[in-house]
Amino acid sequence: MSKYCFGIDLGGTTVKCALFLTDGTLEEKWEIKTHTENNGERILPDIAKTILDKIKEKNISMEEVMGIGIGVPGPVRENGELPCAVNLHWGRKNIEEELLELTGIPVKAGNDANVAALGEMWKGGGQGSRNMIMVTLGTGVGGGIIINEKILTGAHGAGGELGHACVNAEETVACNCGNKGCLEQYASATGIARLAKQALESSTEESLLRKKETVTAKDVFDAYKEQDALAKDIVEEFSEYLGKALAVFACVADPEIIVLGGGVSKAGQALLDCVEKKFQKYAFSSCKETGFALATLGNDAGVYGAAKLVLSK
Amino acid sequence: MSKYCFGIDLGGTTVKCALFLTDGTLEEKWEIKTHTENNGERILPDIAKTILDKIKEKNISMEEVMGIGIGVPGPVRENGELPCAVNLHWGRKNIEEELLELTGIPVKAGNDANVAALGEMWKGGGQGSRNMIMVTLGTGVGGGIIINEKILTGAHGAGGELGHACVNAEETVACNCGNKGCLEQYASATGIARLAKQALESSTEESLLRKKETVTAKDVFDAYKEQDALAKDIVEEFSEYLGKALAVFACVADPEIIVLGGGVSKAGQALLDCVEKKFQKYAFSSCKETGFALATLGNDAGVYGAAKLVLSK
Repeated sequence: MSKYCFGIDLGGTTVKCALFLTDGTLEEKWEIKTHTENNGERILPDIAKTILDKIKEKNISMEEVMGIGIGVPGPVRENGELPCAVNLHWGRKNIEEELLELTGIPVKAGNDANVAALGEMWKGGGQGSRNMIMVTLGTGVGGGIIINEKILTGAHGAGGELGHACVNAEETVACNCGNKGCLEQYASATGIARLAKQALESSTEESLLRKKETVTAKDVFDAYKEQDALAKDIVEEFSEYLGKALAVFACVADPEIIVLGGGVSKAGQALLDCVEKKFQKYAFSSCKETGFALATLGNDAGVYGAAKLVLSK
Repeated sequence: MSKYCFGIDLGGTTVKCALFLTDGTLEEKWEIKTHTENNGERILPDIAKTILDKIKEKNISMEEVMGIGIGVPGPVRENGELPCAVNLHWGRKNIEEELLELTGIPVKAGNDANVAALGEMWKGGGQGSRNMIMVTLGTGVGGGIIINEKILTGAHGAGGELGHACVNAEETVACNCGNKGCLEQYASATGIARLAKQALESSTEESLLRKKETVTAKDVFDAYKEQDALAKDIVEEFSEYLGKALAVFACVADPEIIVLGGGVSKAGQALLDCVEKKFQKYAFSSCKETGFALATLGNDAGVYGAAKLVLSK
């Protein structure tokens, strides 16, 4: 009978690995390096080896292993196929088939942002809900949509690519994706820093932020908490973009809860309050009950979500 | 063994009924009146009677009936509960349980716009796809999201309420829902007529539309097809709102195909071309392959989708 499963979070520099009991208990965590040289040819064999080593070390029999879940930095289709993963130097491949071949264990793969969202639904900020939107406010803006406890993968593996929703058709600067006016340009850590730079340049108003050489998103929220007027304007602008976009997303997916994660979410309750206020301003009546929460699993969201991929299969 | 199922499309004035073979063949269609008086207390008993009469008339045994699917004009939760249906004069009720009790046949209920979308996926404009966004451009703007052949119901039965996504935060006129700047205010037949009125009032430009006492959405598209310059501006404005909104929705749900239905969709290929062009302008790279199609089932979409609710259970 199955007693164990593995949750793997494959990143561009490290692979986070975790052994779970099938009741959801995290038994052990470890990391290995991601070797991206030679088109990342060692990555999957390295993962297979560390899993098989762990099975041996723990005296686990193969029959006791239910499966391997893995989150990958790229679009993963429903059949386990990945068209490409730039950070891993990978072209098209089927991760599920390859890793099954290397380990003899069934594999379920998903996009890393989606898998982290699944983890937060299972054991994090969205615990207890079955329908969730997670937005990760980091260097970029990532997203994951969970519908009835399952990841919304979409037809092209682009389900939940919330950072690239157009929120400002008037924008003149291009996003990394090539389009102009993407949510990511205003709601990521980088985006908030950009809004701050623009605000500082377009006025001579005194502000705590003028003491910094380069202003970060953290600086903005710190100054906001000190009642700095300019920081308030910046947070207002950021919240307007994000809260309005979330209200639109809610008309599509109608989640029970919206979870905010990533570096920017360290701003905590202040962030939730600002964004929720703007969400309420624009939300359709049936969606006004939607809850808001902060992500709680941090870097572990990926391994939890990966394990859940297997357990909810 | 099951050989039959019923598809019911419950509207405010008539109930469309259909008997299907479980292989998907529509065997027979008929209608009964919707009696909304006394809080609509007769509606479900009338539906039960017409179904049981049909079973008797056709000499069908109860074992041969797989189930009843029903689309209802209101938000239906996953458990079959309906908080209210204004047009039927209904308060809270569980349709699935009540109709099962009246007929002895298992029932699956869904929101009418969502059920129509499921019908279009199964036998209409979205045939062959498993992930679809349908937008119904009628008096209002309705929507339905299909993910892996299932309706996205959402936590509050508001999944796919696309007409109430905010697309213009600067709007001063209120939508029927109470918010301002909803997609419905620009992309419904009523919305297009409003855009036309504004365009005619704000210029003295000659136009075929000036010959009409009241300009309808159909008039606008007819004049557009005649190369009328003012009509082109109106269609451009409408398409910008709708195409951009669809590109945002695609970042959430990543459909294989977007199907346009409702009265406005009678404008045909011209409508598809304008909207798709704007969609392409704003779509995230991974979503640019998304197809566009017109709805094909017309008023039958509801009974088809209702039958599919049962067949894909």
